[in-house]
Amino acid sequence: MSSSPQSQESGATRRSLLASGAGVAIAGAAAGLTYAGRPGSVAAHQSSSGRGSSGSASAEPVPFRGEHQAGIVTPAQDRMHFVALDVVTKDPAELRLLLKEWTRAAERMTYGAEAAPGGVVGGGPYQPPADTGEALDLPPSNLTITIGYGPSLFDGRFGLAGRKPEALHDLPGFVGDDLDPARSGGDLCIQACADDPQVAVHAIRNLIRIGLGVISVRWSQLGFGRTSSTSTSQTTPRNLFGFKDGTANIKAEDSDALTKHVWVDPADVPGNAAWMAGGSYLVTRRIRMHIEVWDRTPLQEQEDIFGRDKAVGASLHLPVDKRDEFAPLDFEAKGADNQPRIPMAAHVRLAHQSQLGGIRILRRGYNFTDGSDGSGHLDAGLFFVAFVRDAHKQFVPMQQALARADVLNEYIEHTGSALFAAPPGLGTDDDWGTQLFG
Amino acid sequence: MSSSPQSQESGATRRSLLASGAGVAIAGAAAGLTYAGRPGSVAAHQSSSGRGSSGSASAEPVPFRGEHQAGIVTPAQDRMHFVALDVVTKDPAELRLLLKEWTRAAERMTYGAEAAPGGVVGGGPYQPPADTGEALDLPPSNLTITIGYGPSLFDGRFGLAGRKPEALHDLPGFVGDDLDPARSGGDLCIQACADDPQVAVHAIRNLIRIGLGVISVRWSQLGFGRTSSTSTSQTTPRNLFGFKDGTANIKAEDSDALTKHVWVDPADVPGNAAWMAGGSYLVTRRIRMHIEVWDRTPLQEQEDIFGRDKAVGASLHLPVDKRDEFAPLDFEAKGADNQPRIPMAAHVRLAHQSQLGGIRILRRGYNFTDGSDGSGHLDAGLFFVAFVRDAHKQFVPMQQALARADVLNEYIEHTGSALFAAPPGLGTDDDWGTQLFG
Repeated sequence: MSSSPQSQESGATRRSLLASGAGVAIAGAAAGLTYAGRPGSVAAHQSSSGRGSSGSASAEPVPFRGEHQAGIVTPAQDRMHFVALDVVTKDPAELRLLLKEWTRAAERMTYGAEAAPGGVVGGGPYQPPADTGEALDLPPSNLTITIGYGPSLFDGRFGLAGRKPEALHDLPGFVGDDLDPARSGGDLCIQACADDPQVAVHAIRNLIRIGLGVISVRWSQLGFGRTSSTSTSQTTPRNLFGFKDGTANIKAEDSDALTKHVWVDPADVPGNAAWMAGGSYLVTRRIRMHIEVWDRTPLQEQEDIFGRDKAVGASLHLPVDKRDEFAPLDFEAKGADNQPRIPMAAHVRLAHQSQLGGIRILRRGYNFTDGSDGSGHLDAGLFFVAFVRDAHKQFVPMQQALARADVLNEYIEHTGSALFAAPPGLGTDDDWGTQLFG
Repeated sequence: MSSSPQSQESGATRRSLLASGAGVAIAGAAAGLTYAGRPGSVAAHQSSSGRGSSGSASAEPVPFRGEHQAGIVTPAQDRMHFVALDVVTKDPAELRLLLKEWTRAAERMTYGAEAAPGGVVGGGPYQPPADTGEALDLPPSNLTITIGYGPSLFDGRFGLAGRKPEALHDLPGFVGDDLDPARSGGDLCIQACADDPQVAVHAIRNLIRIGLGVISVRWSQLGFGRTSSTSTSQTTPRNLFGFKDGTANIKAEDSDALTKHVWVDPADVPGNAAWMAGGSYLVTRRIRMHIEVWDRTPLQEQEDIFGRDKAVGASLHLPVDKRDEFAPLDFEAKGADNQPRIPMAAHVRLAHQSQLGGIRILRRGYNFTDGSDGSGHLDAGLFFVAFVRDAHKQFVPMQQALARADVLNEYIEHTGSALFAAPPGLGTDDDWGTQLFG
């Protein structure tokens, strides 16, 4: 057998190798650090995933800092690991310090480096490694790490009550909800998206590790396949009902729609809540899909429920020979029976801005399968993720309309729910702790 | 927004499009069918994964038929969905027919086609679609579908008792086992591996759908990252302890080792069990890893437990400047303290053929994270999969040695276990039903 390339590395620490130029040096903004990406190249490692959600095979990392957090309008990566955490310390200073440490680790990992300088060997033989190691050979894989704060974080334990944005309060219950408290809520959340799931899991796992004694895992969700496009450069993927849904999603290129529907305006968060300006509210809903029942439903019924055809994803009002996914939906068009061609209770109609006073949301969800349900079926569905300027003015009325009338409800069950305030992006010297605590 | 390419397809059925040449026509062996692959190309769809475990970006499917089943020595794909099923019908003919239908669907999906001719629209508006649709736009992604039969399938319900291979009987208990019956055993199993998890999940989900009324899901496991190499063309990946494990795995290129350790010899299965010649026994162990405890363990202790260094994966007996993952392990080498440099209880020593009378196994496992454990931690670990000529002569003594002495046991817990007989590959006109029932 041939020697691995690593065998040529003379046992020097990965960190020193990286610093010596084996990796791509990237100027780290915080603390003047110079980061070096993990050198794994697409060609050298088959488990790497440089193919990229933007369709390129680039190993260039997604910038960590900027006006807004990465992982919102970033072209939706293929895989996701999401975790909701509860704060277990009573000391606000510990939380604040953790948020600062997380900032540094998240930025490093985004660029393909280990979670802390020195990585697995930097602390020497008698210290636990500063990185857990399972992503050592993998490229950045478009990793983004997005943080959010739940309403409960502002309950007074940490002196943050005065900084709570007005719109950050729990979602109401919806008709048909079957929420599991163990899959809902949380003081904090971290969303890691990447084209390689091992890179996303590594990021979440290391942030949890760094938070030992300060936070504890409340719930976690792995998403194996994206269900949304957030850029016009992406094709619309399919959910586990086999449909293209969210064709009309807000895209990164539509800056007017982002300003109006996604980013929190300074006027929305006056006074001590101003830290949230430029942020976005993150809604998660774990939606179990009863795929076995769905799979026994005739095609036409499936299409009437969605309001789109299954093969192409086109509006049902279009003649069969003119089906185009991106042709506008015509809710007035009638069929030969003089009934609306897109049924009154079709999902696309109920969720459409024209039926909701102009409401739109940015969807960024993932398909999941979490083993079996103990009753002979897969526990599979959609981990719905949306980013909005105000969840109570956008997601809530939309979900109320859907919960009331959507025929899809016969096939789905909302089993988890959470709302988080995802703060704006970080400037050059900022960190999450200073941003939140002021 | 621009029209999608699909909008040019004039609403014709996907099937007819494929037949007209939009896809890659592949001569189907069974029933003289001509299959047409899904046309999704690597360049056209960002969620596709043509990068390939063999390091190429080829969209060529893995051949379904052959001397041995695919998915054993096939270069380990990046992702896996595994399901164990129980047979719920009492009618052997129904089971036999299902196995035949599965053969056809599995072969089609391997080549990138829908599960049945016509796909989502072929049955017309009043029939449930013959394919669930969520992989419609995705390429073959090196999908392999591997079937296996548990000991319980031969208990007399289906007239198969006389065809049971002698070596197919339940694994014994091991010291420290903490098995969950709901994650163990099963009459049947299907392993789907692919470089795109959506393709693997789609395959399993459709085979379950086809089996409605005949089988029911017992347990299911998603693996997000491969932990083994099964070809010299692959680099050794890392498990969630951050280590390269299984460097000495049996590789596809070592045909002598495969004959000796992996494939069932005709002499092993005389008489009515001869159908199993050329097959292999499939062992699964769901190994929960207590990663939080591991992450607090000093580097040297971690390395002593594995017997390899963490950064490179090299044997610990090698000097720091000569570390090479593929250099042979020297179990006699001693350190300055006159103690074996590779500790007596190190994982690589206990699992090494030199310590086990020449026993070797082909490992093909995957990393998993299944949400949280309800106690503040991720439920993560290794879904161990091995293929062996005789589990009781190979896996059992190896696991007995590990269960007795491996220091790793402080950090892991076996929570699921199963043994299946994976039959040999299918010839041109064979199907799984005829192969099993004769």
